[in-house]
Amino acid sequence: MMMDWDKAAALLNQAQHVVIVTHVGPDGDAIGSLLGLMWALRQLGKQVIPAVDEGVPPEFAFLPGAEEVRAALDGVQPDLVIAVDCGDPGRMGKVGEAARAAGAPLINLDHHITNTYFGDANLVDPATVASAEGVLDWLDRLGVAPDRKIATCLLTGIVTDTLCFRTDNVTAAVFGKAQRLIEAGAPYSEITQRTVMRMSFEALGLWAAVLPRMRLEEEGILWVAIDRPTRQALNYNDARDGGLVSLLISADRARIAAVFREKDDGRVEIGFRAVPGYDVATVAARLGGGGHALAAGCTIDGPLEEAVARTLALLREAAREGAPVVP
Amino acid sequence: MMMDWDKAAALLNQAQHVVIVTHVGPDGDAIGSLLGLMWALRQLGKQVIPAVDEGVPPEFAFLPGAEEVRAALDGVQPDLVIAVDCGDPGRMGKVGEAARAAGAPLINLDHHITNTYFGDANLVDPATVASAEGVLDWLDRLGVAPDRKIATCLLTGIVTDTLCFRTDNVTAAVFGKAQRLIEAGAPYSEITQRTVMRMSFEALGLWAAVLPRMRLEEEGILWVAIDRPTRQALNYNDARDGGLVSLLISADRARIAAVFREKDDGRVEIGFRAVPGYDVATVAARLGGGGHALAAGCTIDGPLEEAVARTLALLREAAREGAPVVP
Repeated sequence: MMMDWDKAAALLNQAQHVVIVTHVGPDGDAIGSLLGLMWALRQLGKQVIPAVDEGVPPEFAFLPGAEEVRAALDGVQPDLVIAVDCGDPGRMGKVGEAARAAGAPLINLDHHITNTYFGDANLVDPATVASAEGVLDWLDRLGVAPDRKIATCLLTGIVTDTLCFRTDNVTAAVFGKAQRLIEAGAPYSEITQRTVMRMSFEALGLWAAVLPRMRLEEEGILWVAIDRPTRQALNYNDARDGGLVSLLISADRARIAAVFREKDDGRVEIGFRAVPGYDVATVAARLGGGGHALAAGCTIDGPLEEAVARTLALLREAAREGAPVVP
Repeated sequence: MMMDWDKAAALLNQAQHVVIVTHVGPDGDAIGSLLGLMWALRQLGKQVIPAVDEGVPPEFAFLPGAEEVRAALDGVQPDLVIAVDCGDPGRMGKVGEAARAAGAPLINLDHHITNTYFGDANLVDPATVASAEGVLDWLDRLGVAPDRKIATCLLTGIVTDTLCFRTDNVTAAVFGKAQRLIEAGAPYSEITQRTVMRMSFEALGLWAAVLPRMRLEEEGILWVAIDRPTRQALNYNDARDGGLVSLLISADRARIAAVFREKDDGRVEIGFRAVPGYDVATVAARLGGGGHALAAGCTIDGPLEEAVARTLALLREAAREGAPVVP
């Protein structure tokens, strides 16, 4: 945790032209934090340009201001750059590089415990459930009351990053903030309908194809492998598994869940989940990835069968070392 | 809506021996409301016996006081009966009949819009997301501050009936109440881990077996039928579909979802879901069932194929008459 409130306020105070960027492959918290902060800084009279490599994914196009987000920055000369939801500078992508080219100072607002504190001012609180919660905390200090647009963006960040209040880190205060944001005008039902309540029909087709192959190991490891031919036959090219690993971990006999996905280049992307009392972050880290104790991931070399065998050996260790908090 | 606050307070005031009952086949809101109210009335000095036909299902045995719930009432002579989460008197089952045999007055606390107002005092608010929310509203009027035990029971009711804050009726106030209950000591993470985050491994096996057979009709009706031999081969006897119909409705091309389950007696149990803007309650009602616009159910005669055909004809009408609120 590092909260440079005063330094951040001073940097913001001196700035007039602000670029906000977020991480490549943006999720709901990335886009929600980006746009929520944009509307708030405009309330403070700043000129703000939001940007992210490849722009806003279609599922977040409903957020107010989404159409303003730039996928590239040419010749922009900000006097302040703010990165939201980026654990390290590489996550800011090409727009991050372009924004920083002229040497403007950087505010780093994030909630990842792995954050490298790469800003001139860092607002990094791993206890917040989403960077959007961190943005709200900052707005409270800046004296900005969320309007409907800000509230919509920030609540979307909180809802998506907590899988609708289901992650282990949700506190009483988070519910209080959700209440405030809805009272400020955030359309809660629409947000859930457009995000956590919706998956692609193609992803469901993929689940239908691969669930019959799921395997439960005696250590309580429930896993499934999605090979390239199956994925290609279904014409399913989305990098995301559509929550399949979250479904697996909900099975009462699973302590640890894993979904292996063979990519087009033959490498294997792996998503891990665990129930409280187990740690898959260590396994992911040993395979060159990262994440939280209960949700982590990595990408390793194929072929698929070898990747599975190698990973299962590590998962068995993790399963033996843990014990469920909730029996 | 009918809120006989004064009458209910008067009845409670005169009573010393209270029996609380809830509906047959109890869910998390039934048991949570039953036990939350039990602990609250004991704070007020009442002697309280909680009861429900067939007792507490194993998944709710973690709730404080679960071991006190009686599955039958013999010779108990209460001077007040309270029914929680029962839409009509029949839902109170045999314990309800036994409790009322001596003619004690009845308080009916519920949140179903179809409630028949069968109490001597009725506390029925269909705007509450769960009967547990109604219990909390009543406790506020009675001046009872929830302790850890009450908060645990009531939050379980709210979490389970809203599928963890995902139903269409969740308001800002509900989040405020969740915050209060967690601050009063309710173990939120444990509650979600034991309820909405957990499904049986056998149910997941059933999903794996039947999802490959799902069918999407051009009207946006996504459905799957679970025949008796498949269910029996998997040794899956649970009446609940483990949320399969909720999964189907989350697919982006689904407007209406249905799961048909062939029972051992050959009749067919059907669960319906819809996205906002559609109405499956009318379809369920025409087939002798009931429910809400977005979540309803019924049981009709087999054989399975005929039940499916008959139902799909009605669902096609409902699909044509609706339009999605969130495109």
